[in-house]
Amino acid sequence: MKVVRTIAELEPAPGTGLVPTMGALHDGHVALLRAARAENETVVMSLFVNPAQFDEQADLDAYPRDEAGDLAIAEREGVDVVFAPAADELYPPGFTTWVDPGDAGAEGAARPGHFRGAATVCLKLFNLVRPERAYFGQKDAQQVAVMRRLVQDLNVPVEIRAVPTVRDPDGLALSSRNARLSPEERERALGLPRALAAAAGAPDPVAVARGSLNGLEPDYVELLDLGDAKLLAAAIRVGSTRLIDNVLLEGEIR
Amino acid sequence: MKVVRTIAELEPAPGTGLVPTMGALHDGHVALLRAARAENETVVMSLFVNPAQFDEQADLDAYPRDEAGDLAIAEREGVDVVFAPAADELYPPGFTTWVDPGDAGAEGAARPGHFRGAATVCLKLFNLVRPERAYFGQKDAQQVAVMRRLVQDLNVPVEIRAVPTVRDPDGLALSSRNARLSPEERERALGLPRALAAAAGAPDPVAVARGSLNGLEPDYVELLDLGDAKLLAAAIRVGSTRLIDNVLLEGEIR
Repeated sequence: MKVVRTIAELEPAPGTGLVPTMGALHDGHVALLRAARAENETVVMSLFVNPAQFDEQADLDAYPRDEAGDLAIAEREGVDVVFAPAADELYPPGFTTWVDPGDAGAEGAARPGHFRGAATVCLKLFNLVRPERAYFGQKDAQQVAVMRRLVQDLNVPVEIRAVPTVRDPDGLALSSRNARLSPEERERALGLPRALAAAAGAPDPVAVARGSLNGLEPDYVELLDLGDAKLLAAAIRVGSTRLIDNVLLEGEIR
Repeated sequence: MKVVRTIAELEPAPGTGLVPTMGALHDGHVALLRAARAENETVVMSLFVNPAQFDEQADLDAYPRDEAGDLAIAEREGVDVVFAPAADELYPPGFTTWVDPGDAGAEGAARPGHFRGAATVCLKLFNLVRPERAYFGQKDAQQVAVMRRLVQDLNVPVEIRAVPTVRDPDGLALSSRNARLSPEERERALGLPRALAAAAGAPDPVAVARGSLNGLEPDYVELLDLGDAKLLAAAIRVGSTRLIDNVLLEGEIR
């Protein structure tokens, strides 16, 4: 496995699958790496905590980092190239050009600038790695929708693949941010997947989810359309940690 | 020469030079086509009056169109492929993703949304045609700067080439909009290149140009930095027609 720190060292190859990550890898990322490994000749994983997609400095500062652990997982999963640049390699002085994915609602409304940052860095990665396919998790469902819209609107020759959410046995969706939860906070956080599961079959899933959150105050509870799938998505805050999750209502994730 | 109307018919080829145009071709465009023809195996010219880069509906409505004449010029200049899509081929329903080149000043300040529209359509064309080089005129100097910034910031693998401005014998820079000038307006418009020429060697070129405009009211008179070249640029309005021009102060256009 090659670890590459600079743009100049990247060598785009046909038949590449890209897994963009911010590191702190968990089994959700592993599912992305395995999907990419199964479908591509070459697998490139990017490892970059993208400052541009954090709307809160405290969230960026507290974001977990474990590069040695991440590289060990990538190696184990058969990744060919890890691209782990410093911030000024992707955002050099004088950087001014941003990709604006338009008004995305839900996460977009709750986190101003978040999708602009994510769309910009992913378009840069698509141009640098030139993958045939790029892999994103269903947990970040709106990010999947933004990326699909981006590649269609800007005619980027890459297929956006979505991989189903991976959960702990208690039902909590895996997230790098889960590491910040105290045991008591984790217990309360379980209200989110439970409320979404309870709402999934209901005639008015938004109202049922809102009514089932056991006192958790949601940033939003919204229906999302991914093209092939309809989802019910929500974001909550437990202590200082913000968590998102969603459940499939119709169609399939692909 | 092939004329292509749809994205599906485009076949990207290595060694391609792209000349993006809005049609109504004049000898300034011909200079771009000749530069592209000299430096590339395949020359693709796009012909698309991009509604997104017009900040005024009246300017878009009045923009000259002559596709038959444009195709004859392209054929004569050895263009291999003309890409002339309808507007909804590039902006289908649901289009929401824009490229925002940041605060560009001068033309950017005078024409809100202009560079966002130009940057978005050019990134789309770069992704669709995948050229090695793309050609722009020095007359649109700030557009050259925006495109260079765009390909650097978003890591687009294309070289932006600038071709010197072509002028009529009286000194007026060629522009598709010149066709709208009455003889009397054209005489007044000559004040623009004359003021820029007078200012070029002066210690304070902006002040000299402003003082030499013979009563023409400029939208702006500004210094522009193209990286390899410093320019003095200005925009004026003569009757209902808006004209821009610039003169090289330092360095070279390439």
